[in-house]
Amino acid sequence: MPKIKFTIITLFQEALEPYLNASMMWKAKDKGIAEFDFVNLRDFGLGPHKSVDDTPYGGGDGMLLRCEPVFAAIESVKAKDPSAKVILPTPVGATWEQPLARELAAAGGHYIILCPHYEGYDERILSLVDYKISLGKFVLTGGELPALAIIDSIVRLIPGVLGGETSAEIESFSDGDNLEYPQYTKPADFRGMKVPDVLLSGNHGEIAKWRKEHESQAN
Amino acid sequence: MPKIKFTIITLFQEALEPYLNASMMWKAKDKGIAEFDFVNLRDFGLGPHKSVDDTPYGGGDGMLLRCEPVFAAIESVKAKDPSAKVILPTPVGATWEQPLARELAAAGGHYIILCPHYEGYDERILSLVDYKISLGKFVLTGGELPALAIIDSIVRLIPGVLGGETSAEIESFSDGDNLEYPQYTKPADFRGMKVPDVLLSGNHGEIAKWRKEHESQAN
Repeated sequence: MPKIKFTIITLFQEALEPYLNASMMWKAKDKGIAEFDFVNLRDFGLGPHKSVDDTPYGGGDGMLLRCEPVFAAIESVKAKDPSAKVILPTPVGATWEQPLARELAAAGGHYIILCPHYEGYDERILSLVDYKISLGKFVLTGGELPALAIIDSIVRLIPGVLGGETSAEIESFSDGDNLEYPQYTKPADFRGMKVPDVLLSGNHGEIAKWRKEHESQAN
Repeated sequence: MPKIKFTIITLFQEALEPYLNASMMWKAKDKGIAEFDFVNLRDFGLGPHKSVDDTPYGGGDGMLLRCEPVFAAIESVKAKDPSAKVILPTPVGATWEQPLARELAAAGGHYIILCPHYEGYDERILSLVDYKISLGKFVLTGGELPALAIIDSIVRLIPGVLGGETSAEIESFSDGDNLEYPQYTKPADFRGMKVPDVLLSGNHGEIAKWRKEHESQAN
């Protein structure tokens, strides 16, 4: 059993899958720590065109995801795993931040992420949703990138995924504000731009002091 | 000439490209409105292993992107288009929000997005950067998802990309806070969950009033 599993309900599996097959996400899968699954919402579409959306009652622009295909898709996953929780990326959700990523990484389990596309979704879909999440104060064409960002930020925190462990641990010290200091690597002189002498000094006390003085706020 | 062009410098082209070949992004490309290009940072790597990173001076965990490959990669793009601006996704950047997406969509032009990976980058790289952008208060394995989110949220605002135009226009009325009301589509009764009567009434005044009363804050 993997520590964490994500089932992504989307119309665009081919756009998302390669990201989960690369880099850290692939490593997590390869080690059996994380599992990624897809459900094609179109398979639950209505009528000969497998339609998944329709116009809003009361007028307005755009198409909304309909209840029937979404309920059927989610229920097809929950039939096999009733414990699965549902995440919906939506502009009215809580802003995605590191403390919730940590909480879900620690809890593990099975998360269904429903990716809305087009202009929105029928409000009744919220009755199925455990976590409404917004990535930030910007508008995207769909829930696919939020889904990947949520998965990425959770999975990298699970022990065994990152190389040396320590990176995720260091970052986990700070529970809210996160401070970062400037970092340098070889060469010591690049086109006349020099690494600060103190960092080459080997004096750990001075290095720590310099870093403290040069910390800045990271989001 | 496309209205906007993005050149993405990354080690993971294969993980990103499918997203830009799907849905709205593909449509924008197909219509000649947007152009997406990739530069493989590895092509500018050092030594027989085409290394792009090294350990931090002064100690610390993880590997930092080195100056030489990054400068060479960016300069290879700027040699052909000196007007290109550089965007760096980084935790210490300004939070990505809709007003800047609108500004860049209106300005158009050529943006180079450098995707840092591993634990960070040599501070001297910032001397090349025009926009430091953070997606939010969460940590990702690399700059690839921020790059896609930045591109997606800009491109969809460019006239001609979205189907009816109106969706992007409606949303552009609000420059800061964004309000959303619940939306419903067919069927009027789904498993006993009913669409509010007023939305079925055809009374536009009452519908507008109901929507106003049920607005909630979107991010």
